[in-house]
Amino acid sequence: MSGSRCQTLYPFTGERHRQGLRFDAGEVLTVLQVPDGGWWEGQKEDGLRGWFPASYVQLLEKPGMVPPQPAEENQTSFLPPGWQSYLSPQGRRYYVNTTTNETTWERPNGSPRTPSSPGTQRNFQPATVNGYHSSGTPVHQSEPVHMSLRKPTGDFQNPGSPSPGKKQSKESTITINCVTFPHPDTMPEQQLLKPTEWSYCDYFWADKKDPQGNGTVAGFEILLQKQLKGKQMQKEMSEFIRERIKIEEEYAKNLAKLSQNSLAAQEEGSLGEAWAQVKKSLADEAEVHLKFSSKLHSEVEKPLMNFRENFKKDMKKCDHHIADLRKQLASRYASVEKARKALTERQKDLEMKTQQLEIKLSNKTEEDIKKARRKSTQAGDDLMRCVDLYNQAQSKWFEEMVTTTLELERLEVERVEMIRQHLCQYTQLRHETDMFNQSTVEPVDQLLRKVDPAKDRELWVKEHKTGDIRPVDMEI
Amino acid sequence: MSGSRCQTLYPFTGERHRQGLRFDAGEVLTVLQVPDGGWWEGQKEDGLRGWFPASYVQLLEKPGMVPPQPAEENQTSFLPPGWQSYLSPQGRRYYVNTTTNETTWERPNGSPRTPSSPGTQRNFQPATVNGYHSSGTPVHQSEPVHMSLRKPTGDFQNPGSPSPGKKQSKESTITINCVTFPHPDTMPEQQLLKPTEWSYCDYFWADKKDPQGNGTVAGFEILLQKQLKGKQMQKEMSEFIRERIKIEEEYAKNLAKLSQNSLAAQEEGSLGEAWAQVKKSLADEAEVHLKFSSKLHSEVEKPLMNFRENFKKDMKKCDHHIADLRKQLASRYASVEKARKALTERQKDLEMKTQQLEIKLSNKTEEDIKKARRKSTQAGDDLMRCVDLYNQAQSKWFEEMVTTTLELERLEVERVEMIRQHLCQYTQLRHETDMFNQSTVEPVDQLLRKVDPAKDRELWVKEHKTGDIRPVDMEI
Repeated sequence: MSGSRCQTLYPFTGERHRQGLRFDAGEVLTVLQVPDGGWWEGQKEDGLRGWFPASYVQLLEKPGMVPPQPAEENQTSFLPPGWQSYLSPQGRRYYVNTTTNETTWERPNGSPRTPSSPGTQRNFQPATVNGYHSSGTPVHQSEPVHMSLRKPTGDFQNPGSPSPGKKQSKESTITINCVTFPHPDTMPEQQLLKPTEWSYCDYFWADKKDPQGNGTVAGFEILLQKQLKGKQMQKEMSEFIRERIKIEEEYAKNLAKLSQNSLAAQEEGSLGEAWAQVKKSLADEAEVHLKFSSKLHSEVEKPLMNFRENFKKDMKKCDHHIADLRKQLASRYASVEKARKALTERQKDLEMKTQQLEIKLSNKTEEDIKKARRKSTQAGDDLMRCVDLYNQAQSKWFEEMVTTTLELERLEVERVEMIRQHLCQYTQLRHETDMFNQSTVEPVDQLLRKVDPAKDRELWVKEHKTGDIRPVDMEI
Repeated sequence: MSGSRCQTLYPFTGERHRQGLRFDAGEVLTVLQVPDGGWWEGQKEDGLRGWFPASYVQLLEKPGMVPPQPAEENQTSFLPPGWQSYLSPQGRRYYVNTTTNETTWERPNGSPRTPSSPGTQRNFQPATVNGYHSSGTPVHQSEPVHMSLRKPTGDFQNPGSPSPGKKQSKESTITINCVTFPHPDTMPEQQLLKPTEWSYCDYFWADKKDPQGNGTVAGFEILLQKQLKGKQMQKEMSEFIRERIKIEEEYAKNLAKLSQNSLAAQEEGSLGEAWAQVKKSLADEAEVHLKFSSKLHSEVEKPLMNFRENFKKDMKKCDHHIADLRKQLASRYASVEKARKALTERQKDLEMKTQQLEIKLSNKTEEDIKKARRKSTQAGDDLMRCVDLYNQAQSKWFEEMVTTTLELERLEVERVEMIRQHLCQYTQLRHETDMFNQSTVEPVDQLLRKVDPAKDRELWVKEHKTGDIRPVDMEI
């Protein structure tokens, strides 16, 4: 995949990441490295290199499909106002009206409000709602939405008609805990960041009601709890292994002690040797189990216990950071609401003054209207600025969420892999223990095969005989 | 070997044995059965069947080598008085003068006191001392000695010359604790009953000085102590196994308990399954060790403990019987000594009276001498009868010792074999335990191979996600 080209889907500042690559949505990068873990290295057209989350880009299957950037810019520059040109994952160009969210495969020529809809290929036309396209076409969110934010500002000078932006907002978005989401009804096929991977960064933007019913839990908090629980599990496994170690040590101690027992120590000959080996084999078994417990300690218990010693602290830091961004988002949302209220008041004031003008035409009133209109425009600009700040905060939060959840994913994979490896090590040690244990019986078996009652008798008779002679009949 | 013929070496009464075959030394039997254990079944010429200790007979390598019994008797009947004819193990006939213990390959023709010594084959002539022949020729003990006991009786009528029997006894036998043995100096190559087998019945006729120095221990007592110690060893092994069982039960209990532990029970997904199997495998291990301990109990501990439950009682009975025979032997030895003393007195009296006769020849003295001679002859007959009784008692003791030690040998082989088998059973159970133990790890390994962080993440995300949507930039 290295050497391929990809198109960026979202703007990425990269500022919180060493060697992070800053880019806007829609840029084309050359992919340099694609190691596991979700972070790729890429190079921009201007030669700048850096790292970015793989989920921020869309691979271009055939690099040749993308026309050189200047050519595209040229094409874009000739589009009617409000229209943008994009590439489908298949490399086919299509057009999006960022104001009305209309899409078409054909290059629009008419006015932006009446784009020609795709003809014969209607079934395949990319559907887009509020910046999200159904699967099969690349996702464009930040860029188009930023566009839609700026376009309707002129409408504040035409207060009689409701602004398309506000109308659209009411219809297709909902706000949960100060965060604006697309309305579920309008998102039947929302494109996910990593649709095949069940990535954390796709499913934890919203908050969740606390199971106890009081308050809500942030999605990120749930992810974090998962990690902390994982850490806890790993610690508990380590404790479990420690208990096992204790059992093994106790067992080994008992076997070793019994091995020293003098029972039947006086058995003689080859049977005596075999019996002595039976007893010795218990000491061997004890050693095997001691070795098992000592290896369990060094190769399973300790690594499990020490893996990510400062994990909780790191997670807390991470949590604070996200929480701060979340707070900023909330305060900026409050500013937006305040500015929105101020604008409403200014508009009411302007409306009232306009009505007064209709009743009695005075010079002073006309100036009042001018002043009110200026203030209304100012309030509109304030709201715009507040929305801008809110959107900036959300963009930061978005980036932080994506990169952090990516990191959490990596950590989780690492944790599962680490535990898996150490449990494999555990079973490996168990296997070895059984094998070594079996080998302790081998010398016993050998000596048992050599047990020879005749030889034993010979040895015993030689040692204990009372003489070589047998009695003879007495003679007179 | 069944169907072979054998020659009996000692007389056997068989009276203490069910289906025992009674025979004298020198008879030829047809061997019917030769099972292990030292007892054979045989058939006499007259068709009588029965069992006898294999050590009482000498196999005739080729049955055809032995001439029919009547022919041999005919040959024997033509020998000069005092000579007997025997077959060497190679089937060659040789001749023994049972009075002088001279042997020759050639048939004696002259007077029994001057047999022709073997000529060119002097080096191969069978040497015989006091009824024992050096190895290579069959052993003849009881029969010749009984002969030598009877032959010299006439010498009591010739008191001037010392009786050859007494002279021989002084030179070539010693008496230890009332039992007459051949003198070691005259027995450089004493033939053993079962020379290749280090049989108990060959080496425990004499008594042994107690290690503490007070009194002596009968050879049979040593054999008996060996058996009782063997019984004790087997009991101690059983106790040892019981200790092992306790250790296994304790180990199994601890494993089972740990298996129930809830540590890390909340680990999820495929890793959670693998972990649950790790815990379950401890219960499996516990079961394996419980099974081990239960089989140790039923297949090793109990059989070892119960093998020969009444062994000590049986041994005591056996001991009493041999001890009784030993006492009888002692009392009969005392009778012999008493009769010997009486004979000496009678001979002194006769000598004195004969000297008196030389000094003054009186009619009364001559009658006294006749009377004294009669009494001396009577005392000689008494001694002869006492020796006969002693020899009978010793023969009984001999038979009892041989058959009992044979039984002890069989018991010892059986005991060693029994212990060997049960220790083999022990190692077999150990092997099985290790194998079963190994198999408890198998399902853990399988589940560990199936651990899949991606799948786990998918399941977890599906369950815990806060929504499918991602935030969008706010619009005015």
